[in-house]
Amino acid sequence: MRGAVLHAPGDVRIETLDDPEILHPTDAIIRTAVTCVCGSDLWSYRGLDPVREPRTMGHEYVGFVEEVGAGVTAVRPGQFVVGSFATSDNTCAHCRNGYQSHCVQRHVMGTCQADHVRIPNAQGTLVALDDVPGEEFWPGLLAVSDVMGTGWYAAEAAEVRPGSTAVVVGDGAVGLCAVIAAKESGAERIIAMSRHEPRQKLAREFGATDIVTERGDDGVARILDLTDGVGADSVLECVGTPEAMSQALRSARPGGNVGFVGVPHGVAVDGRELFYSHVGLRGGPAPVRRYLPDLIDRVMTSRIDPGKVFDLTVPLDRINEAYAAMDERRAVKALLTP
Amino acid sequence: MRGAVLHAPGDVRIETLDDPEILHPTDAIIRTAVTCVCGSDLWSYRGLDPVREPRTMGHEYVGFVEEVGAGVTAVRPGQFVVGSFATSDNTCAHCRNGYQSHCVQRHVMGTCQADHVRIPNAQGTLVALDDVPGEEFWPGLLAVSDVMGTGWYAAEAAEVRPGSTAVVVGDGAVGLCAVIAAKESGAERIIAMSRHEPRQKLAREFGATDIVTERGDDGVARILDLTDGVGADSVLECVGTPEAMSQALRSARPGGNVGFVGVPHGVAVDGRELFYSHVGLRGGPAPVRRYLPDLIDRVMTSRIDPGKVFDLTVPLDRINEAYAAMDERRAVKALLTP
Repeated sequence: MRGAVLHAPGDVRIETLDDPEILHPTDAIIRTAVTCVCGSDLWSYRGLDPVREPRTMGHEYVGFVEEVGAGVTAVRPGQFVVGSFATSDNTCAHCRNGYQSHCVQRHVMGTCQADHVRIPNAQGTLVALDDVPGEEFWPGLLAVSDVMGTGWYAAEAAEVRPGSTAVVVGDGAVGLCAVIAAKESGAERIIAMSRHEPRQKLAREFGATDIVTERGDDGVARILDLTDGVGADSVLECVGTPEAMSQALRSARPGGNVGFVGVPHGVAVDGRELFYSHVGLRGGPAPVRRYLPDLIDRVMTSRIDPGKVFDLTVPLDRINEAYAAMDERRAVKALLTP
Repeated sequence: MRGAVLHAPGDVRIETLDDPEILHPTDAIIRTAVTCVCGSDLWSYRGLDPVREPRTMGHEYVGFVEEVGAGVTAVRPGQFVVGSFATSDNTCAHCRNGYQSHCVQRHVMGTCQADHVRIPNAQGTLVALDDVPGEEFWPGLLAVSDVMGTGWYAAEAAEVRPGSTAVVVGDGAVGLCAVIAAKESGAERIIAMSRHEPRQKLAREFGATDIVTERGDDGVARILDLTDGVGADSVLECVGTPEAMSQALRSARPGGNVGFVGVPHGVAVDGRELFYSHVGLRGGPAPVRRYLPDLIDRVMTSRIDPGKVFDLTVPLDRINEAYAAMDERRAVKALLTP
């Protein structure tokens, strides 16, 4: 089969790889319907995360079940399934507590930019749709497997409540999905921080009521301006840099919350500043599995359309174009077709 | 009047100070019934916080109203009142959000180890009892003005829920009150981390079900042992050192919460560690004012008795003995009588 391999920063190639096989009774093999490139893939593509040896890429997927191990009864060959970038048995204590992305058997996917994928813990990870959905739903369902689920967790971790004010830091695919999540959680005012006109437009389409283009101290000052000097109830930090985290923490009101879902790179939080801010802080890889049934339903009933974050579609064979476009910020997120 | 002045580390004296006067219409003057020494007073007494010039001390108080400014109608002369270490107007946005310790007019008390005290923002800060309580209730009510309110906030920030497992890091007065708070919040299992036999005894009396004497890695390992490898739902960090914070964060389960109320000294939280832990974190000076009516009621109905944290009583004139006993850990907390 074909699959993406990152050889060095900037050097991603489609190669012929071994077809995946059932290794454990809890595995399933799927044929990907569509897959995509994640903003987090850019950390290694840009050399900001080290690339010590060639590695397969991709952790987002929807597709058709081809084969299941003996222990898998939840899905069957032929079904269209959605999963999560982190697999989970959905039975351990962490899963039962709702943190499937901390499952004791967690396996983080990394081979999904390919024709076929082995899904470990398939029984607890995959959710099958009743019928094969129309292709127009595939991008939205694909978004659910990571960026939409991650935006949802940002809203949950930031404790967005009906009638509240939410700020979204970051206008990548996760940030844009976080706007959807804030809206669906009932936020009355949603302030998106974005400098890019097409992304501002999509943010507004998703429910943003205000756009702030300033950053750093000026950005914080604008948020305080817009909230009568009080700060926001919830801030959804969807970047992962020290600047973004600082901006998030300083934009929240005392007693407010920051949910952070950008994988932190060089972020350290000063204990005393956090103390005197009275701001609550929770982050982590999103427990997407918990949200799947609900988010799939919202997509299939057209209540939300996170698939709109895909503003570029390229065939898998030309994956280098997808990475380059996202690296150069010409695309928010690139969809890969077989 | 008499009042405490810290001249240098280890050098605290009772001196004759000017009687406080009404400076603003929102002030009240109280005569202290009892006051006390706080663990946080030891930071400067020990020279760990700099003492650049002589300073008055004390931020915990209960007493009798002697005089009120023209704008104060909530309390009247003769009434027995309880306040908070942080005064608040109880009307600003932060107060309305429940964070009175972040009031825009906040004034942090610092003259309470004295015969008389001026209370700024008296209207929003002081809560009067219907009748003058018996002296046996004074220590408990005094605890409410800081350590009990702070322990209560630790439990709230750590989101202690009925049936949950809570760990309390720190066996000072706040930690012991945090045990009370966890118990009152319905925690089924309360693990107190303490190495001191008399404090362990009081922790058990307050509701601790388990005592862990180990610290650091061993302490974390014990908590994991006691929770089937999962970690605690809630951890109440009542110390403020990097070691205590690290222990707290590593003792909480994924999706659990750390409430931190020890003023951080040298604490920095690594963003990536916090991210992958899935632990929620909130701290700060406790919004004691919000809890006052409820906590006063719990004390006056003898449902809780946080006054037991006072294991030494000395007259104000011998305050140096109180500081020395707490500094040398011979006393948990010292009550000062007029």
